Formats: sequence, structure tokens, C-alpha cells
Amino acid sequence: MLRIGILGLGTVGSGVVKILEKNSENIKNKVGTEVTIEKILVNNLKKERDVEIKKELLTDKVEDIINNSNIDIVVELIGGEQPAYDYIIKAIENGKSIVTANKLVIAKYGKRIFRKADENDVQVCYEGSVAGGLPIIRPLQNSLAANRIEKIYGILNGTTNYILTDMSKEKKDFADSLKNAQALGFAEADPSSDIEGYDAAYKITILSSLAFERFVDVNEVYVEGIKDIDIEDIELAHEMGYVIKLLAIAKNSSEGLDVRVHPAFVPEDHPLAMINGTYNCVYLHGDAVGQVMSTARGAGQMPTGSAVTADIIQVAKDINHNQREVQRMDSFLESNVIKIDEIENSFYLRFEVKDEPGVMAHIAKIFGDNNVSLASVLQKQKENPVVPLVFITHSVREKDLNQSLAKIKKLDDVIEIKSVIRVENNI
Amino acid sequence: MLRIGILGLGTVGSGVVKILEKNSENIKNKVGTEVTIEKILVNNLKKERDVEIKKELLTDKVEDIINNSNIDIVVELIGGEQPAYDYIIKAIENGKSIVTANKLVIAKYGKRIFRKADENDVQVCYEGSVAGGLPIIRPLQNSLAANRIEKIYGILNGTTNYILTDMSKEKKDFADSLKNAQALGFAEADPSSDIEGYDAAYKITILSSLAFERFVDVNEVYVEGIKDIDIEDIELAHEMGYVIKLLAIAKNSSEGLDVRVHPAFVPEDHPLAMINGTYNCVYLHGDAVGQVMSTARGAGQMPTGSAVTADIIQVAKDINHNQREVQRMDSFLESNVIKIDEIENSFYLRFEVKDEPGVMAHIAKIFGDNNVSLASVLQKQKENPVVPLVFITHSVREKDLNQSLAKIKKLDDVIEIKSVIRVENNI
Ligand SMILES: NC(=O)c1ccc[n+]([C@@H]2O[C@H](COP(=O)([O-])OP(=O)(O)OC[C@H]3O[C@@H](n4cnc5c(N)ncnc54)[C@H](OP(=O)(O)O)[C@@H]3O)[C@@H](O)[C@H]2O)c1
Ligand SMILES: NC(=O)c1ccc[n+]([C@@H]2O[C@H](COP(=O)([O-])OP(=O)(O)OC[C@H]3O[C@@H](n4cnc5c(N)ncnc54)[C@H](OP(=O)(O)O)[C@@H]3O)[C@@H](O)[C@H]2O)c1
Repeated sequence: MLRIGILGLGTVGSGVVKILEKNSENIKNKVGTEVTIEKILVNNLKKERDVEIKKELLTDKVEDIINNSNIDIVVELIGGEQPAYDYIIKAIENGKSIVTANKLVIAKYGKRIFRKADENDVQVCYEGSVAGGLPIIRPLQNSLAANRIEKIYGILNGTTNYILTDMSKEKKDFADSLKNAQALGFAEADPSSDIEGYDAAYKITILSSLAFERFVDVNEVYVEGIKDIDIEDIELAHEMGYVIKLLAIAKNSSEGLDVRVHPAFVPEDHPLAMINGTYNCVYLHGDAVGQVMSTARGAGQMPTGSAVTADIIQVAKDINHNQREVQRMDSFLESNVIKIDEIENSFYLRFEVKDEPGVMAHIAKIFGDNNVSLASVLQKQKENPVVPLVFITHSVREKDLNQSLAKIKKLDDVIEIKSVIRVENNI
Repeated sequence: MLRIGILGLGTVGSGVVKILEKNSENIKNKVGTEVTIEKILVNNLKKERDVEIKKELLTDKVEDIINNSNIDIVVELIGGEQPAYDYIIKAIENGKSIVTANKLVIAKYGKRIFRKADENDVQVCYEGSVAGGLPIIRPLQNSLAANRIEKIYGILNGTTNYILTDMSKEKKDFADSLKNAQALGFAEADPSSDIEGYDAAYKITILSSLAFERFVDVNEVYVEGIKDIDIEDIELAHEMGYVIKLLAIAKNSSEGLDVRVHPAFVPEDHPLAMINGTYNCVYLHGDAVGQVMSTARGAGQMPTGSAVTADIIQVAKDINHNQREVQRMDSFLESNVIKIDEIENSFYLRFEVKDEPGVMAHIAKIFGDNNVSLASVLQKQKENPVVPLVFITHSVREKDLNQSLAKIKKLDDVIEIKSVIRVENNI
């Protein structure tokens, strides 16, 4: 028999308990022995639980799990940075293997955690940390291992994808769609990590580290969220044959890694444009395999529980057979993310300008002087003295674009720079 | 150092050699030691090769590989049933782990091969046998292991998907599209295994065995190919909002397994309808994870080489760390595929009838008497005495449908039953 301790009995923890129970016979067959829950850590022993659970399994003392010599595997599902990180480290030091869905901790402290696990000859699995139930961590570690991954494009945050889909389909503004997502349970009460892009940034940090075999530093990843996306931008995008998505991007080149999270124009006939609602998607390109795209629900109790329980089964099987899955990270290189300033992209730009002759010429001159060349211009109906002026640029270095925008901002006939959104034409 | 022997240096074998060479440093890091090719078996030592290879590596004597005590891993890429199967068994008996892309041998003899491998404490990996570079075998074995898989729908044969896409886009008939596919290298000189559905049947046999943990008997899998698909059916499908795809289907129910390969109407807004050309796709539903869909190129030198080389890396890593990935197949049950007669499906039916009053009533009566209820009827323009009559049925047991069709065939005013194609509305 193999005993696990679970830290946290919230959304995902309850899912794991349900799956372990429902599929116990099947899991026993796969592992070769029974897998039982020895203890579950919670904050509040008195809270009503979503699953039926024997009272004596619950504890509010973490030592009951991480110092418990009966327990082989610690499943960390409390989330957040601390105390989760400390608990993981202590459990490893006590010889326990770890399964976690904590993208923040893996993205920030993965390197330390994996080293510690190596020193203590235990495993750390984190399939649930990226894209919920979608198999992506292990495929990068094994089925795709013969490839040099060249680029990854992900829709990795279900909350923002739901909001953008809702804004686009229902012609709602951001605030309304966010409220709607919260009412439906697709966004948290404090949605900042999702809508500001940090959640996706943790995930692309994890994926790019694995794909490019470097410990990508999450602080070097450029992050921009979706809260400034205007319904007008969504409609203009649509007119021009695009959909706006929050993309997590990671590309490998000889100059370094290009890793970033931001809203982007995606051509409407690209498969990524069709990923709607709370679905997640990973689209990658390997030198041998070519394009691979996978999609599934990226969050929620059962999908994430599926990934976490799969990790538990794998680790339990290995322990039961006296093995240890070796993840050779000793050859991983250090982070070398290129600063966003140096990245080249095509851009969508929306200005509000005065309806006066010469404004276009003024703007065009500044672009020309700063190496920004234009692919298309759209000037909307002129019913009032303030008119929207929309540009799509050719590929331009961000630094050059920003310099020109700083100058354009100061023009008398430019009222406001409303939107600056990257356009991803070559996914 | 780890030494491998490769049986076969054709399309896939050459791809594996290329990838091992190109990514050798990276593979060494992953495995923890160098992986080198000791010997390669070919039929014809004098043939020009697609890859540069030292002459002394080639042999036409299989014993140089399967009896070679320097070799730890045998990579079988000669294809076909014999001598591939014998070579695999002998290599296992000699203590060698196997990597293969041979779907025919795994589908037909998987059970015997896995038992033999267990007895000899070696591994057998076959990621390349299904859907080329698309990671699906390992995800079923690990990332999705906590699920009860309920159903799988696959587009698993690139040749037929290319032909159907080409027929549909270019309004060509089957023979022309097949010739085109052959000219482009997407279909073999003898395309029968692809176009008759057997290739897809081997693959769905492998997937359903893994997903449902039963040794599915490939002979119990219903198989129907695409060569009777008429351009007229493709156009009528389009008019009714469908696309015709060769689907490989596997469903699990309390009555048994429903495993089959046949052309099917797929609703045009379903993601499967958008998989075009030589792409493959696996769409599955698990009780915890919900829907997962993955797509990639399903064949070809490099995609398949990617999957085979990933398996080589995995096995080499395990051997180098004195481990052995345990695939617990001892609890797999026996095959219990339901006979196609008992399966219920909606059907598209196209008849050629005489333009005479009463024909519809005659047909409708027979359907009514045999429990076949109709969802829709389409009668095309009546410019000549022979008119096409098209029906979509509600869900009906195949036995009942076939009984009614046998009677309808005998009607005087029915000239011919042109097409009978299953409609998959509830994917
Ligand atoms: N929710 C998803 O769909 C999803 C998807 C992918 C990944 N994840 C990741 O999975 C992890 C868990 O997320 P979740 O949504 O399940 O969180 P949650 O619903 O907020 O649950 C957290 C659980 O941890 C317990 N807990 C929190 N802090 C604790 C502490 N200091 N000491 C003891 N117990 C503590 C809570 O106890 P009480 O119940 O007593 O308050 C609660 O049971 C996070 O890392 C998250 O990023 C979640
Ligand atoms: N091609 C694909 O895209 C693809 C995709 C997925 C899976 N697969 C599977 O991969 C396997 C290999 O396919 P392939 O397309 O690479 O085949 P292939 O191009 O026909 O190559 C077969 C190779 O095996 C050698 N060979 C055949 N029979 C032999 C024998 N009896 N003794 C010694 N050597 C023999 C041939 O030698 P000579 O070169 O001297 O004739 C040739 O090098 C098959 O199981 C196939 O189903 C292929």
C-alpha cells in the first residue's frame, strides 16, 4: 500500500479525492498496489467540504503530513508562494516525492526544487500546473524529446479566454464580461493574476524551460494583461480578419529566448483563433515533428484533478517498483530571455486624432523617421471632429515603435493613443 | 555508451538516423550517455540511401543485430507482419528492448509481445505506430491515466484524409485524388491498407486497447474504407452541413466496446471537420479531463522519426539508470467488441429511384416496418426519369437498417442504393 498526504482540500484537492475514490480499483491495477490518502491539510477544520471525507483524515498541522513517516508522496494543492514553497522543500528533505499544480512555485523556484529533489532522490511532478487536464508537461519530457522545439504559442489562461470570447460574441465591454465570468465561477473574486497575465506567464515560463532546456527566469518574461482591451479593438480586429487572444509565446533563436504574454491579433482562420471559452491550447513547432496542437479544458476541479492524479499514479508506480523517473535537468542552461525592446513584431495601433488635414502626414513622417513601416491604414467615418485612425505596421523593433509613439503623442492633432496591440501573423 | 540496432533504413529508418545525428548532443544530455547506432539491417546493401551512412554499419543479416551482445535496443522499422514479428520476438528473447512503429504487428500481436517483454524484463515502445509525431500512446499511459476514457474519435490515416480533402476542395473523384496523392508521395504504390481502412483499424485497435485496458482483437473491429465515396456524396454532405471523414471510433459501454473504422458524416463546425490534408487528429473524452483534442502530421519521415527517436531516448535513459518503465498490462481484460449489427447510428442514404408516384411511400413503409425512423429527406431536381433520393435516419440499429435496405433493393421503382454512410452527430 502507498500512502499520500494532500496539502489543501479546495477546488483541485477535492477533485483529486473524488478521482482517487471513483477510480480506485483501476488505479490500484495501474500502480500495482493500493493508493490511500493518509492525511489532508486544511486551514479550517470546521469548513463544510465538497467531498465526503472521514473527519480523522483532516488536520491543520502540516507536520502531520510532511513529517509523517507513513507518507511517501505529498500532493501540494494549497497554492500561492508561501507557505507552499517551504512545505514542498521540507517534504523533499524528508524524502517524500512531490506532486503539485502550483505554477507560481514551479515557475519561480523550479530550479531549486528540482535540485533539492535530485539531492534527496525523490520525484517532483507538476502536470497540473499548466493547462489543467491537457497533457503537455510529460509530452515535452518524453514523446517530443527528440525535437528541438522552435516555438510555442499557448492560450494558457481560461479566465481571460472566456472574457475575450464573451466580449467578442456578446459585444460586451471588459468589465461586464469579467463580472459575468465571476458569476459563472470562471474568474476568481480577485482576478488580478489572471487578467494581468501573470498566471499565463508562470505557465509559459514552465513550458519554455522544459522545451528549451533552460531555467527561464519568470521576472524576465514580458507580461501584459487584457484589461485595456476595448470592444472597439475587438470589432476592428474582426473587420480586418483577426481575433484578439491573450497569447503566451516562447521562441528560441540564436540571439536568445523570446518569452512573453500579451494580447495579440491572431488571424481568424488560424486554429488558435477557434479556441473559445475556458478552453486552453498549446500550439508548438518542433524541428522533426512539425506542428502539434492540443486543446482541452485548462482549469477546473476535474480536469486539473485528472492531471494531478495522473502524476500521483506515475510516482506511486515508480515507488512501488523501486524506481525513480529521472528528469535530467543538470544540463539545463541559464535563462537568456531577450528584452522586449529588442523584439520585432507587427502592431495594430489605434489613435484618436483631430479631423484636420495634415494629421496623417505628421504621423507618417514620424513613423518613417523611426523605421516603422506601415502595412495598412484604416480611417473610419468622420461624423465628428474626433476620428479614429488605425494602422497595422510591418514588423518593427519595439524600441523603434515606442520612440515614434512618444513623439506622436506630442503632436497637436493627435488626441490620444488608444490601443497598441501586437499582431501575430506568422504563428 | 548505449548501442542500438535498427532494422530497416527506409522512410522512417532514415528519419531516425537523421534525428539521432542532428540532435546527438541534446540526446546525450537527456539520456546521460551517448546513443550510437551499431548496425542497420537492410534488404539490399547496394541501394542508394537517403542519408549518409558509413558502409560498415549496414548489414543484410538480422543476426548481426538481434544476436549482437553489444546492442541494448532494437528499433524495428521494416514494417509488415513477417519477418518483423519474428525479429521482435527473438530480440526480446535475447534481452533487448524494442522500439517500433509497426502498427500491424502491435495491433495483431501486442499481447504476446508485451508478455514476452515482461518475461524478459525488457521494454517495448511504439509511440510511432499511431498518428506519427502526435504524442498519444504515452499520454494514454500516463498523463491521462487517472481517467476512464469514454470515447475516442480519430482521423488516423493521412492518406485517406488527404484524398477526402482533395476530393472535397477540388471537386475531383476518388481515382483522380488517389493518383494525385500518389504523385505527391502521400499514398503508396499499393495504397490498399490505407484506403480500405486497415491502417486506421490497426491504430484504433492499439489506442482502444490502451484506453480501455483490454486486448482488443483487431479481427473484431469493423472496417470500411473510402473507395466507394462519391463526389456527389461529398457535395450532398456539404449541402446538409457535413464533411465526410474516415473516422476511427472507439467507445466503451456496459455492453462492450464499439470499435470501428468507416467514412462518416461529421458536422462541419466540429473541430474534427477542420482537420485537413495529411494531418491526423485524436479527439477523446475522459470522465475527469473532459474533451482533449490533439492534432499533428500523422506520417512522414521526420514526424514519425520524432516519435520513434523519443522512444529510443526514453528506453536508453531507463537502461542507463538501471530502470525499466513498467507498463502494467497484467490486469488488461480480453476483447469484447460488439458486433457492428448491434450498433446504433444515424445514416445518410442515397438511392436512385424512378421518377414515379408512390416510390417514396413504398420506401417509407419498409423503413417504418423495420424500426427505421427518418430525420430528413432530400429529393433533388427531377430533370430525367432517374432521380436521386436522399435520407438521413434517426439513430437505428444496423441490423434493422440492413433488413430494410435488403427489401428496398427489391422494389421495382428503386434502381440502385448508391450510398450508405454513417452520420456522427454526437461526437
Ligand atoms: N482551480 C483550478 O482550476 C486550478 C487549475 C490549475 C491549477 N490550479 C492550482 O492548484 C492549486 C490549488 O488551487 P485550488 O483552486 O484548489 O485552491 P483553493 O480552492 O483555494 O484551495 C486551497 C486549499 O488549501 C488550503 N490552504 C490554503 N492555505 C493553507 C495553509 N496555509 N495551511 C493549510 N491549508 C491551506 C485551503 O484550506 P481551507 O479549505 O480550510 O480554506 C483549501 O482547502 C493552486 O496552486 C492553483 O494555482 C488550480
Ligand atoms: N512511412 C511513414 O510515414 C510511417 C508512419 C508511421 C509508421 N510507419 C511504420 O514504420 C515502419 C517502416 O515504414 P517505412 O515507411 O519506413 O518503410 P519502407 O520505407 O518501406 O522501409 C523499409 C525498410 O526495411 C527494409 N526491409 C524490409 N523488409 C526487410 C527484410 N525482410 N529484411 C531486411 N530489411 C528489410 C528495407 O530495406 P531496403 O531499403 O534495402 O529495401 C527498407 O530499408 C512500418 O511499420 C510502417 O507502418 C511508417
